[in-house]
Amino acid sequence: MLENLGINARKAAGVLTTATTQQKNFALEEIAKALLQNADKIIEQNKIDLDNGKKAGLNVGLLDRLMLNKDRIEGIADSCLQVIKLDDPCGKVLETVERPNGLKIQKVSCPMGVIGIIYEARPNVTADAAALCLKSGNAVILRGGKEAIHSNIAIAEVMRDAVEKAGLPKDTIQLVTDTSRESSTELMRMKEYLDCLIPRGSKALIQAVVENSTVPVIETGSGNCHIYVDETADIDMASEIIFNAKTQRIGVCNACESLVIHSAVLDKALPAIKKRLDEKNVEIRGDERAKAVCPDIIVADESDFATEYLDYIISVKTVDSLDDAIDHINKNSTGHSEAIITENTDHAKIFMSRIDSSSVYHNASTRFTDGGEFGLGAEIGISTQKLHARGPMGLCELTTTKYLIFGNGQVR
Amino acid sequence: MLENLGINARKAAGVLTTATTQQKNFALEEIAKALLQNADKIIEQNKIDLDNGKKAGLNVGLLDRLMLNKDRIEGIADSCLQVIKLDDPCGKVLETVERPNGLKIQKVSCPMGVIGIIYEARPNVTADAAALCLKSGNAVILRGGKEAIHSNIAIAEVMRDAVEKAGLPKDTIQLVTDTSRESSTELMRMKEYLDCLIPRGSKALIQAVVENSTVPVIETGSGNCHIYVDETADIDMASEIIFNAKTQRIGVCNACESLVIHSAVLDKALPAIKKRLDEKNVEIRGDERAKAVCPDIIVADESDFATEYLDYIISVKTVDSLDDAIDHINKNSTGHSEAIITENTDHAKIFMSRIDSSSVYHNASTRFTDGGEFGLGAEIGISTQKLHARGPMGLCELTTTKYLIFGNGQVR
Repeated sequence: MLENLGINARKAAGVLTTATTQQKNFALEEIAKALLQNADKIIEQNKIDLDNGKKAGLNVGLLDRLMLNKDRIEGIADSCLQVIKLDDPCGKVLETVERPNGLKIQKVSCPMGVIGIIYEARPNVTADAAALCLKSGNAVILRGGKEAIHSNIAIAEVMRDAVEKAGLPKDTIQLVTDTSRESSTELMRMKEYLDCLIPRGSKALIQAVVENSTVPVIETGSGNCHIYVDETADIDMASEIIFNAKTQRIGVCNACESLVIHSAVLDKALPAIKKRLDEKNVEIRGDERAKAVCPDIIVADESDFATEYLDYIISVKTVDSLDDAIDHINKNSTGHSEAIITENTDHAKIFMSRIDSSSVYHNASTRFTDGGEFGLGAEIGISTQKLHARGPMGLCELTTTKYLIFGNGQVR
Repeated sequence: MLENLGINARKAAGVLTTATTQQKNFALEEIAKALLQNADKIIEQNKIDLDNGKKAGLNVGLLDRLMLNKDRIEGIADSCLQVIKLDDPCGKVLETVERPNGLKIQKVSCPMGVIGIIYEARPNVTADAAALCLKSGNAVILRGGKEAIHSNIAIAEVMRDAVEKAGLPKDTIQLVTDTSRESSTELMRMKEYLDCLIPRGSKALIQAVVENSTVPVIETGSGNCHIYVDETADIDMASEIIFNAKTQRIGVCNACESLVIHSAVLDKALPAIKKRLDEKNVEIRGDERAKAVCPDIIVADESDFATEYLDYIISVKTVDSLDDAIDHINKNSTGHSEAIITENTDHAKIFMSRIDSSSVYHNASTRFTDGGEFGLGAEIGISTQKLHARGPMGLCELTTTKYLIFGNGQVR
């Protein structure tokens, strides 16, 4: 049933391979304009989703993420305009080699072709993801959650018309309007038409895509992020960084979920850290040694160390060496972001080499793992896998490469 | 059952993250030495596989690929020595940015961790793949075909001992000795322990891995490679390139399987090409228009255009424009290698932008798509997918990246 979307997307992708930066930017400008012009229409459709959501008993947080108003639509339109300012990631000559036989070989960046995005109830993803795919020269097939379907249809229609008005194929942006589980599974098996599938949302959603997709997936993901307080750590710095990484925003994947503290400084470090975390009533779940130092904390069990709380809770593990800290973290982390607080640069170096995560920090908060904070300008997600992209993914990560080989009759 | 291999591989991978280039090269040297020293033992075990293969009725081609003798083992040892000469792909600083808040962010190359290789009956893959994984700092779990199991066990044992002797973990290299279908499926689901899975072999094998794996796969692949003879092509050059691309070696993925000829030059080009291909008795299967020009060719049906013959057979499609040529090729190719023969550089440019393949040639043979020919030094396979690696994969493609962020107390 989705095959037609696949066929249309391939056609659009073919046209996009030769679209100029100017054409793509013009389309983004038209999209931003059209979103503002059609704000009322979008809000009207969004109201239907909100009403249905209330009837279905969605919680306040979900309803808030679902809700669109003038301000938020202006924000979405502004994001499209921001994407215009970003460098075109396509057509970059990444390597050139001339072979002894005279063949000139170039490795150049180019669009992937067709990208699928599977996401949940946030209608802004519809516009954000489509804008990034367009700028990177890709056609996109969007498959959002059923809770946002009316909003998504409205946004997608506005964008499609704008793209067409700008002279690029309407099918550069397509939305799967069937929100059944079957349509989602079908999309995951459309290997012939999709070059890449990016799930955005809950752990369960991502897991389902990884399990069932035959299309190559970029896993974006959960973050059970650790901060290790080494024996030579500046305790004040550690406390500030941990306070920030745990409490600045609790529901995000780069928030700190677990502390690892060297036994030599546990006595001094834990009370100082606890004092700071107490300001926000953070619940501390520690091992027996931590409890011996701060008797009013809760005793952690093994599962705590593997838990991404996304809440005002943090676990504490005591270790006797840098090696033990590294082993504990590599065993329990999700490969997202980890930090070491130390004045010993050798320790920092070993930690940074051996920790198997996308982003490893020395003396800074894990909260910086973010496309904007890394200077990428925009972000389609944070990859916790190791193929293709790792860490915050910007426009470049939505491209692939090809080899162009220039000859004058060479045979082998 | 394979879980222990996974646990051991992770441990070895942890050690390899800090292994120096010198250590890895020393291990490769020890491996090469040990392979030569143990050649008799390996040949003895290979004889068992050969005897079993003959009893099982394996064809001559398969038996030849399975066979090891002194010369071939010397070749394998020499490949290991060649890998020593290649640049270490790890630890390269690919990007550095300093942020306004003082954070210094580096993107560096590093080992993936644990790589799985699933392959068929060629025992040399055991050594070649292990050597490339070792040089790129990865632990490897090898799963070869049952036809080569005795040879593989012998080779793997020799390599494991050599690696240990060189001071690196023995489990840097592990072989799955259970060659049941179940062990293969189990390997494909070992997401916790494997960072990447590379299938090498037949289309059926690769398909099975893509369908069943939850581990990220790099698809290496089949090549239904096209050569397009444009209206301004130099016909002599076209004939030579096509003769080379079709007949120099027929069983390889970068051999040409299909011609696309512009109708304006069909009369002139096809007879010239046919004359050259007749020297090797290549069977031509063409469309009606081709048949009208050369009546003694066979009429092709649609399936011919999608077939990778790997034989002295080639298909011919007539088109009326560059656009039609591009559409036909993108519809039928496997995304491996395609060429345009033309004197018109604008046409070459359009063709190279719009053809959706890993390697696109202007006036050269498709047979050059190869790690060695591209100057990569070694090759683990040729990727026909677009994520992570596309085209010939060398050592760099066996690495991932991580972000290292250096701060002095930054919080968000």
